[in-house]
Amino acid sequence: MTTTENFTNGVNVDQLMQTIKHVQDDPALAKFEFRAKNNWIEGGRCVSSVKGFYGVGQEDTTRKETFTMECDHPNVLLGEDKAATPAEVVLHALGSCLTGAMAYHAAANGIEIESAESTLEGGCDLHGFLGLDPEVRKGFDGVKFKLKVKSDATAEQLENLARFSPVFDMISNPTPVSIEIVKC
Amino acid sequence: MTTTENFTNGVNVDQLMQTIKHVQDDPALAKFEFRAKNNWIEGGRCVSSVKGFYGVGQEDTTRKETFTMECDHPNVLLGEDKAATPAEVVLHALGSCLTGAMAYHAAANGIEIESAESTLEGGCDLHGFLGLDPEVRKGFDGVKFKLKVKSDATAEQLENLARFSPVFDMISNPTPVSIEIVKC
Repeated sequence: MTTTENFTNGVNVDQLMQTIKHVQDDPALAKFEFRAKNNWIEGGRCVSSVKGFYGVGQEDTTRKETFTMECDHPNVLLGEDKAATPAEVVLHALGSCLTGAMAYHAAANGIEIESAESTLEGGCDLHGFLGLDPEVRKGFDGVKFKLKVKSDATAEQLENLARFSPVFDMISNPTPVSIEIVKC
Repeated sequence: MTTTENFTNGVNVDQLMQTIKHVQDDPALAKFEFRAKNNWIEGGRCVSSVKGFYGVGQEDTTRKETFTMECDHPNVLLGEDKAATPAEVVLHALGSCLTGAMAYHAAANGIEIESAESTLEGGCDLHGFLGLDPEVRKGFDGVKFKLKVKSDATAEQLENLARFSPVFDMISNPTPVSIEIVKC
């Protein structure tokens, strides 16, 4: 027997449909927990490592590589400029997630994406971070995401697919963050 | 005349105090805009590049390096597992930002941090992303940040310093994201 895999947009559509069926049959399989370890280097410079996660009803055993990522700050923000700032890293995660969500949901709907590239811009005002004005927020006052897509679908259809993005949800809606600090 | 630089936690405290004074003298210097370009590879795999930003009243000319970052998804989420997921990248940005904010504000307050390391956990339920249940959110239902710190300050003091984090604000409070899709 020959198995022909059915790919659209680089997504294995058969596997995607099986995943949906498995989750419908056993809702517990849908629970995921992602994790990161973070180590402070100095100033505004940190390094994270990412490997283990929980999903599909078990602790993952398939990921072989530990991914390491750094953050730093440019000289004008008192850093050594060894890596992108945390705010820029958020833009990377957001752009990747909106685009990936569009590609997955397009595949599930038989919509082909030929190419996609985007720019993201986030503005902020240091009065917030520096604690100089409690009325000014510390994070971005907003993010502009502009995506150029080559596809037969309409821009409205593509936007509706992109809006399934988990990181878009995390940024545009409040996500509770608990902070526990332990002295050692 | 000898200039002695005054560093605490790897932060140049004199430069930090000058930055605060400059912003107080000319509020327009506090406006920053960070940017990323994102290119879709296939499926849930993307690469971002980060270089230019606006801040301190001008387009930055000091950053020499373009930082590139990837996202992918593990096999169980139909990816090739070439890089961390966007959700994990958010944890990296959040942990780095909370820790960096603590280090900067501690320095400004004469509090020394000897070491800091943290773990971050974010849970989600695929019923949201897959569109199987509109009541289930697509992103994390919450993030747990646990930070071990070696410092003479109290845990409460340190938490109050970490809460200046811009990414903590972006995640825990709603940040408007505009989406513009252009067909090409």
